[in-house]
Amino acid sequence: MIYDRVALLGLGLIASSMGHAMKAAGLAGEITGYARSAETRDIAREVGFCDRVCDRIADAVADADLVVLAVPVGAMGDVAAAMAPYLKPGATVTDVGSVKQAVVEAVSPHLPDGVHFIPGHPLAGTEESGPRSGFATLFRNRWCLLIDAEGTDPEAMARLRALWEGMGANVDVMDAAHHDVVLAVVSHTPHLIAYTMVGVAEHVRRVSDSEIIKYSASGFRDFTRIAASDPTMWRDVFLTNKDAVLDILGRFSEELFVLQRAIRTGDGQHLHDYFTRTRAIRRSIVEAGQDTAAPNFGRGGRDEA
Amino acid sequence: MIYDRVALLGLGLIASSMGHAMKAAGLAGEITGYARSAETRDIAREVGFCDRVCDRIADAVADADLVVLAVPVGAMGDVAAAMAPYLKPGATVTDVGSVKQAVVEAVSPHLPDGVHFIPGHPLAGTEESGPRSGFATLFRNRWCLLIDAEGTDPEAMARLRALWEGMGANVDVMDAAHHDVVLAVVSHTPHLIAYTMVGVAEHVRRVSDSEIIKYSASGFRDFTRIAASDPTMWRDVFLTNKDAVLDILGRFSEELFVLQRAIRTGDGQHLHDYFTRTRAIRRSIVEAGQDTAAPNFGRGGRDEA
Repeated sequence: MIYDRVALLGLGLIASSMGHAMKAAGLAGEITGYARSAETRDIAREVGFCDRVCDRIADAVADADLVVLAVPVGAMGDVAAAMAPYLKPGATVTDVGSVKQAVVEAVSPHLPDGVHFIPGHPLAGTEESGPRSGFATLFRNRWCLLIDAEGTDPEAMARLRALWEGMGANVDVMDAAHHDVVLAVVSHTPHLIAYTMVGVAEHVRRVSDSEIIKYSASGFRDFTRIAASDPTMWRDVFLTNKDAVLDILGRFSEELFVLQRAIRTGDGQHLHDYFTRTRAIRRSIVEAGQDTAAPNFGRGGRDEA
Repeated sequence: MIYDRVALLGLGLIASSMGHAMKAAGLAGEITGYARSAETRDIAREVGFCDRVCDRIADAVADADLVVLAVPVGAMGDVAAAMAPYLKPGATVTDVGSVKQAVVEAVSPHLPDGVHFIPGHPLAGTEESGPRSGFATLFRNRWCLLIDAEGTDPEAMARLRALWEGMGANVDVMDAAHHDVVLAVVSHTPHLIAYTMVGVAEHVRRVSDSEIIKYSASGFRDFTRIAASDPTMWRDVFLTNKDAVLDILGRFSEELFVLQRAIRTGDGQHLHDYFTRTRAIRRSIVEAGQDTAAPNFGRGGRDEA
């Protein structure tokens, strides 16, 4: 057991998966939970990934050794303010938001002295959301990024790291600003682009919805998968990691215009060189074990009926 | 058996998969093959998806009832010119290129009277290429689009359809212009965008290659998978479906700029509404059975070690 009592605030995909994972591995003595919506709390009670779901945030965090903020990034500040008076001295507070600088700015001012704040971000998710969507192995073999800053308590960091590793994750530690740039590249901008492409497809009148759906396997399907993620979470990501996303988007537009011009002018050599380089990046990812080279974009193929 | 003799010209992923699939289902009496490269021909002989691999295109197409052009779109015209003198009267010629109007323009002028030309496009692929990459089930439960035009022979069309259905594909028929617009939306433009995003990621100096590779599961991985496809094939796609791709790219840029402005101005409502609509499109694709809602973007999750 790593913590005697863990409080989960916000009971969606990540919190419910953490509850299941902590129970499966015996990492917490007691797990309490709180969500703003009575309906969510009732579902959480029914699903049973907490030992106790509380109607008041004060009851959930009372005496907790670890408090996990698992609400959308835009709600972190309010939840922190609401729970702060009830935190146990010496407790650790963490979060699971996809943006880190904005969370630090929103949460830190509310926390009393003697409470350790170590922001976190598990790089795991599905296109589902809500308290029914969690499962114990969501974090297995996934990365969890923990944020250190000047003054971070080494012992509190070591315990939180042990919790994530106990749930199957690999842990890396970095600072909040670097996290936000990295995620803008590997996650936030790709998501925005996928959302955009799916939106465009919907508007092309000459192509029917049923054609888009039937023929989606030829590339578009990967975009729809990414673009199916929780709208509230992603709205908050873009509003709070604005600078890094706009920077990467600017580079993306530049680069796209160069390729667009190569198409317009018929510069086949430029296109071929570019596509050869990107293929090499893909090979590195497959070699690093982060994906397989299975056919049909990894879904189906040889084994599919 | 649907054809007594089938000739495969070009022996890459699609042709080798067709060879394996036709053999597995007993759809062809004899399968001949030809590729420009001696090395490819040798590998094809070793792998054995043809009954006979020929060193000269004339020998491969002689007496064939069906000739399949399975070379990059940019090479279709030259291959058609080279084989045309040796075609059997009444034979059917088809192709498997990802663009259809340009193929019709390149191939049709070379074909003698009495030969049926029915262009085709199986919507199936992997990130691998070459004669070793094929397998018999590549087309199973995938769409194959066949192109009809004024004067297409109904009997020749029915036989070609039966061949594709025999290899496990679902067949739809449409005209070449419509095909090219549909594919620009569901495949060509998404590929170009994925190539672009992967190229951008490589250029962001503040983020290391190892970080990109390690954390790719958070969205970027789907882009690298798409951007790993064969560079020559994709160069030709963009050069030959130029108009439709540039049209869809223009709409994409417009739409992206609107979202970019919403981020810059903090218009959360616009973002939330947009992301909610795209999520609905995703639901339709899952419901239509073209994908599953499995966790972690369908690769791994519950069952992954």
